[in-house]
Amino acid sequence: MIDLRSDTVTQPTPEMRQAMANACVGDGVIDVDPTVEQLERETASILGKESALFMPSGSMANQIGVRLHCDRGSEFLCEADCHIYQYEQGAFAQLSGLVAQPIVGREGVLEVEHVRGAIRPENDHMVRTRLLCLENTLNRWGGLVIPQETIESVCHWAHEHSLKTHLDGARIWNAAVAKGLDPSQMAASFDSVSVCFSKGLGAPVGSALAGSRGLIEQARRARKLFGGAMRQAGIIAAGALHALHHHRDRLSFDHEAARQLADATSDFSAVSVRGGRVDTNIVMLVVDPAWGSAAALQSRLYEAGVDSFAMGDEIIRFVTHMDVTAEQIDQACRILQGILGEASASH
Amino acid sequence: MIDLRSDTVTQPTPEMRQAMANACVGDGVIDVDPTVEQLERETASILGKESALFMPSGSMANQIGVRLHCDRGSEFLCEADCHIYQYEQGAFAQLSGLVAQPIVGREGVLEVEHVRGAIRPENDHMVRTRLLCLENTLNRWGGLVIPQETIESVCHWAHEHSLKTHLDGARIWNAAVAKGLDPSQMAASFDSVSVCFSKGLGAPVGSALAGSRGLIEQARRARKLFGGAMRQAGIIAAGALHALHHHRDRLSFDHEAARQLADATSDFSAVSVRGGRVDTNIVMLVVDPAWGSAAALQSRLYEAGVDSFAMGDEIIRFVTHMDVTAEQIDQACRILQGILGEASASH
Amino acid sequence: MIDLRSDTVTQPTPEMRQAMANACVGDGVIDVDPTVEQLERETASILGKESALFMPSGSMANQIGVRLHCDRGSEFLCEADCHIYQYEQGAFAQLSGLVAQPIVGREGVLEVEHVRGAIRPENDHMVRTRLLCLENTLNRWGGLVIPQETIESVCHWAHEHSLKTHLDGARIWNAAVAKGLDPSQMAASFDSVSVCFSKGLGAPVGSALAGSRGLIEQARRARKLFGGAMRQAGIIAAGALHALHHHRDRLSFDHEAARQLADATSDFSAVSVRGGRVDTNIVMLVVDPAWGSAAALQSRLYEAGVDSFAMGDEIIRFVTHMDVTAEQIDQACRILQGILGEASASH
Amino acid sequence: MIDLRSDTVTQPTPEMRQAMANACVGDGVIDVDPTVEQLERETASILGKESALFMPSGSMANQIGVRLHCDRGSEFLCEADCHIYQYEQGAFAQLSGLVAQPIVGREGVLEVEHVRGAIRPENDHMVRTRLLCLENTLNRWGGLVIPQETIESVCHWAHEHSLKTHLDGARIWNAAVAKGLDPSQMAASFDSVSVCFSKGLGAPVGSALAGSRGLIEQARRARKLFGGAMRQAGIIAAGALHALHHHRDRLSFDHEAARQLADATSDFSAVSVRGGRVDTNIVMLVVDPAWGSAAALQSRLYEAGVDSFAMGDEIIRFVTHMDVTAEQIDQACRILQGILGEASASH
Repeated sequence: MIDLRSDTVTQPTPEMRQAMANACVGDGVIDVDPTVEQLERETASILGKESALFMPSGSMANQIGVRLHCDRGSEFLCEADCHIYQYEQGAFAQLSGLVAQPIVGREGVLEVEHVRGAIRPENDHMVRTRLLCLENTLNRWGGLVIPQETIESVCHWAHEHSLKTHLDGARIWNAAVAKGLDPSQMAASFDSVSVCFSKGLGAPVGSALAGSRGLIEQARRARKLFGGAMRQAGIIAAGALHALHHHRDRLSFDHEAARQLADATSDFSAVSVRGGRVDTNIVMLVVDPAWGSAAALQSRLYEAGVDSFAMGDEIIRFVTHMDVTAEQIDQACRILQGILGEASASH
Repeated sequence: MIDLRSDTVTQPTPEMRQAMANACVGDGVIDVDPTVEQLERETASILGKESALFMPSGSMANQIGVRLHCDRGSEFLCEADCHIYQYEQGAFAQLSGLVAQPIVGREGVLEVEHVRGAIRPENDHMVRTRLLCLENTLNRWGGLVIPQETIESVCHWAHEHSLKTHLDGARIWNAAVAKGLDPSQMAASFDSVSVCFSKGLGAPVGSALAGSRGLIEQARRARKLFGGAMRQAGIIAAGALHALHHHRDRLSFDHEAARQLADATSDFSAVSVRGGRVDTNIVMLVVDPAWGSAAALQSRLYEAGVDSFAMGDEIIRFVTHMDVTAEQIDQACRILQGILGEASASH
Repeated sequence: MIDLRSDTVTQPTPEMRQAMANACVGDGVIDVDPTVEQLERETASILGKESALFMPSGSMANQIGVRLHCDRGSEFLCEADCHIYQYEQGAFAQLSGLVAQPIVGREGVLEVEHVRGAIRPENDHMVRTRLLCLENTLNRWGGLVIPQETIESVCHWAHEHSLKTHLDGARIWNAAVAKGLDPSQMAASFDSVSVCFSKGLGAPVGSALAGSRGLIEQARRARKLFGGAMRQAGIIAAGALHALHHHRDRLSFDHEAARQLADATSDFSAVSVRGGRVDTNIVMLVVDPAWGSAAALQSRLYEAGVDSFAMGDEIIRFVTHMDVTAEQIDQACRILQGILGEASASH
Repeated sequence: MIDLRSDTVTQPTPEMRQAMANACVGDGVIDVDPTVEQLERETASILGKESALFMPSGSMANQIGVRLHCDRGSEFLCEADCHIYQYEQGAFAQLSGLVAQPIVGREGVLEVEHVRGAIRPENDHMVRTRLLCLENTLNRWGGLVIPQETIESVCHWAHEHSLKTHLDGARIWNAAVAKGLDPSQMAASFDSVSVCFSKGLGAPVGSALAGSRGLIEQARRARKLFGGAMRQAGIIAAGALHALHHHRDRLSFDHEAARQLADATSDFSAVSVRGGRVDTNIVMLVVDPAWGSAAALQSRLYEAGVDSFAMGDEIIRFVTHMDVTAEQIDQACRILQGILGEASASH
C-alpha cells in the first residue's frame, strides 16, 4: 500500500531510532532533560525566538499559545478553515473559555481587507479582541504557502491595533523550503509560533511552542496544567532533534513528488487541483460530482493500492512524505491516471 | 430631546407603576412568588410552551438556553450578526465553555443553504454541533422579521439533523404584530425561546425563557448558578405582566412611526434604509460616506434635539417606542430632512 | 402561620411600595438609572468604599467579587461552612474556573492559626492563592458575629501575604447593629464587600458589591457577562434605598426576639443553642437525637403554626425578621416550649 | 550524588533503551500504534479493567478521569492531602469547571466516618456530588498503603450512594508488591484507575487511565482535547511495556531500602518517621524544630552527597528507586546518622 493519507504516518529511520536509544535524559519536571533542552534551544534559534518549549502535540502548543495571549473575556481572529478553530475540539472555549471569531479569507488566506473592522470596540457587551492566528502552510487549502508580504502586512495591522499574533506553523518547515526562506523569516512577524516534528520531519512524537522568554515561562506552567509535562522526554526529543538536523532539506523531494501527482491529473476533467497550484507536500483534488464522489475515488484508489483521504463529498487529499519512494509516486500516478481515465466512478 | 436610541429607554406608565406597587409577592427562592408565577404561566401560554422562567435580563435567558442545549464539548450555529454571538460578551464560551459557529446569512437571515454542511461529523478532532440559534426580529438588520417559511424550513432542517433550536425573541412581540401572527406560531419551531419585557413592551426589567417543563426545571437551577434568582421579584414581574396585557397591540403604532421616519428620508441620496424595508420599530440608515460619517449625522441630530445611535462608521439606528409621541415623530422627520437637505456633514 | 424560616420572606411595607411606585428611573444599561445610582452611592458611603454596584442577588455579588480578585489559575481561602463555598452551586469553579480551599475554623470563624501555612508556594504544580473570603454574620453558625479583632488580625495576615480580602456581608447590617459599630468599620479590612437588601432589611430584591472604583468598574463588566445588567432597576433599587434608610436600626428588635426564642428553650435538655449564644437574628438549635430528629421537631412546630427550617438531621433554624410581631414571638415561644416539654418526638 | 529526591529521576536501562529503539510503531491518531495498543491491553488486563489509554502524564490521566465522572455542575470528594487536589494546578476547576470537596482523613486515609454526610442533597444552591477519589500509595503520607478493607468499605459506601470511584494509582505497583496483592485486587473497587510507568517502574515517560470500555472511549476524546494524542508513541510505550514486564517485582528492594533508611534514624530524637511506619519506597521524616528546619537538614545532606526533598518547614522526603544501589543506601544511612548525631543544625 502506498500510504498518502498524511505525513504523520512516517516511521522513524534507523538513525533516528539509534539517536533516541542513545539519548542523554533527565527528569524534565523536577530538573532538566538535557536533550529536551537542546531541542528547545535549537528550535528557538531556528525560529529566531528567545525560547521554546517541547510539547506532546501541536494541538497543545496551539491551544496554550492562544490561552496565553488571550486573557479572560477575550477572543482571537482566525481564518474560518484553520486547524485551531476546526480541528482542536474547541479547546480554546472548552478549556480556556475563549471566543473565536472565524473570518472567511481568500482561499484560506486572511488579508488586511478581511480583518479590517473585526476588532471590537471597548464595550461591556463585547469580548475583547486580543490575538490574530494564522496557519502556514494551509492544511485545508492543499499546503499552500501564504505570501510573505501578506503575512507581514496582516501582522503589521494586528500589532498596530495592539493584537498579538500566533502562527500555527505545524508545516512551517515545508513553507520555508518551498519559498527558499529561513524559518526565522517566516516566524518573524509572530509573537508565538507552534511547530511540529512529527509531520514532514518524520519524528515519532512532538511539537514546540516558541516565543519570548516570558511567554515560554508561562507556557511551561500551562503545559503542567494541561498534563503535558513529561519526565525523561529526551527519548522522543532526540528523534525530533535528529529530524531537525537531517530531514528539513529533503522536504523539497516531497514537494516535487506532490507536484508530480498533481501534474498527472492535468489531462483529466474529472478532477482539478484545489487552489490551482501545489506549493508543498499536499495535493487536494476537487472531484467533479459528474465523475463521482471523493469517497468513491478514495475507495477505487485503495483497491488499487493507494491510500488517500476523502474530505467531505468532493475533496480528496494526498500527502507526500519521507516514507514514499520515487517509484511509489510513479506508480501512484499511473494508478490515479488509470482510474480517472475510466468513464466515471459508477462504471 | 426625542430619544430614539432604543426601545429600552421607556419609563413605566402610571398604571404600570400602580400594578407594581400593588403586586402580590412572595419569596421566589424558598417558596413561590405568585406574580412571577403568573407571569411565567401567561408567558408560556402566549408562546405555546409548557413552561417559562423569569430572568433579570435577556442575555441571561439566551445564555442559559444555549448552555442547556449544548453539553460539554459542543457548539451552536448562529448568524454572524446575532446578539448571542456579538453582544453578550461571549458568555457561551466564558461561562459555559461552548464554541459558536457564526455563519453569514442573507441580510441576517440563515436559510437552509447557509447551514447545510455546517454540522460537524463525529470525530475526536471536532466539537459536536448541538443547536441552531435564530433571532427574530433581527436587531442588526433593522428589526426585519424573518419570513415564517424560512424559520420553519431551517428549523425543520435542524431537527432532522438532531439539533435543538433556540429563538432569541427579545422583540418577538414586534414580529408577531408586524406579521399578524400569534407569538405561539412564531415560537412553534423552537425548543426554547427567550423574550424581553423591557424593550417594546415598556416594562422596567425582565425577560423570560420558555420551553418544555424539563428544560425550564434545568433553567431554574442554571438561573441560581448565574446569580439570577431573586426573592420578591413579583414587584418587577407585575410591570412585565401589565406590559404583556396592555402594550402588545400598540406596537403597530411604533412600526408605523418607524416607517414614517424611513419614508422621510426617501428623497435623500445621502442615506438608504438597510435591508431596503422597515418591518417593525427599528430604522437603520446606511450613510453615504460622501455625505459624512454616521457619527457626524448622529451628532448633528443630537444638536437638533434627536437622539439616535451610530453603529460603526456608516450606520445610524433609530428605534421607536411608547414614549415617543406622533408629534415627536413628525418633528424628528423634519429635523432629519433638514439635516440631510444640506450639502454634506462637513458644511 | 408564624414564618421563621428566613428573613428573606418579608413583604415590602406600604411605604416601601410607595417609594418603588414613585421611583425616578432610567435605562441603566445605556445610560444611568438615577435611583440605582443613588443606592450605589449611599451603599458605598455607608460601607466606607469608593464605589458600589447593584446586583440582582447576593450570590452574583459574591461570585463576581471572587472572580475579580482571582485571576486564571488561582484559588481563594474560606471557612468550610461559608455560603460562597457551600450554597452558590460552585459558581467560582463552574463559571470562573477557580479552586476553593475550604478550611475548618473554630465554630465557623477563621483565625490566623487556621490559615497560616495555607498559602501555596509558587510552583507549577499548584494554583496560586489570591484571596481570603470571610462571612459576617455567619449563616451556618446561627448568625454569630465574628469578633472585630479576629477580622482585623486575619485580614492583616492576608494583606501581609499579598492576598485580597472579600466579605460576604449579606447580614452585615445585623452584625453592625449587634456590635454597635458602624458598617464601615466592619468593612474596613476588606477589599470588597457584598451586602444584601432583601434579608433583614426587608427589600424585595437586590444586593450590592462595594470596593474600589477600579474594582467596581470591572464588576460592571462582569455583571453584564453574568446577565445581571437590568434596565429601569430603579424600581427595586427604590425599595432597597428605603430599607437602607428606615430598616437598619430596627434590627435590634429582631435580635431581641431571637434571644427570647433561644431563652425559651433553656430549660429543655432536648435542644441546645448552636455556638452557645445568639448574637443576631438567627437561632440554631441542636436537637438531641434522643428526643428525635430536627425534621420531626420542624414538623411538630409546623402543625402548631410555627414554620422553621431543618438543616441536616440535628439542626433546626429560626430566623426573626420585620414581619414577625412581638406577639407572634411570644406565641412561638409557648408553642416551642409546649412541644419540647413533651417526653420526646415519638410520643 | 545519591539522588533520593524522587523515583521519577531514574534513567532507562540499556535493555529498555533497546526495546524503545526496536519498537514497532504506527500513527496512533489516524490509525493504531501497535506498541501503545499492546501496553494498553496489558495494563487493562493487569488492573482487571476492560480497557486502558496511554497518556503523557499522570496528571492528565487523573484529570481526565475526574472530568469524565463529573458532569457539569458537580464535585468530587477527596482527601485534603491528595495529589489531584494539591499538585495538579487545580485543573479540575481551571479546565473542567469542577469543585473539589477536600476532606481531612486519618493520616491521609479517608474512612467511611470521614465521608459520611459529605454528599450534598439535591438542591439548586449546591453542586452535585458525583465521585470519590482515593490515592494509593499516599504520596504526602510517606508512601503508606491504604488498608484493603478501608478501600473496600469506603468505595462500597460511595457506590451505595451512586458515586463513582477513581483511584490515583500512580504508585499502585508499590502498593501491590508491599501487600502481596495483585494490582487487579487493589483496583477492583474503582470505576477508573490511573497508573504511572515513570515512577518506581523506571520508564522515561507515560501513564495510563483504565476503566470500562465506554469510559475509555470518552477518555480518548478527552485526551485529544487536552493535547495528549501522540503519533508514534510506541517508542515511549515500549519503555513502559518493558518496565511493566521487568521492573515490578524488584520494587521490594526499594521498599527494603526505604525501611533501612528509616531504621537508621530510629536512635535520633531529632527526626521521626511520618505516619510511624514505612510501607513502600518513601520515607518522610518529621524534623524536630529544636534541631533545625527540614531545609537545613536537606542542605546538610546535599553537601554530604545525599539529595533529598524538603516539604514545608518540618518534613524531609527520601524516595528509593532502581538507580540507587545497596551500597549507596548504606552510605546514605551513614551520612544521615552522622548529621543527626551532631547537636543541632545550627552547630
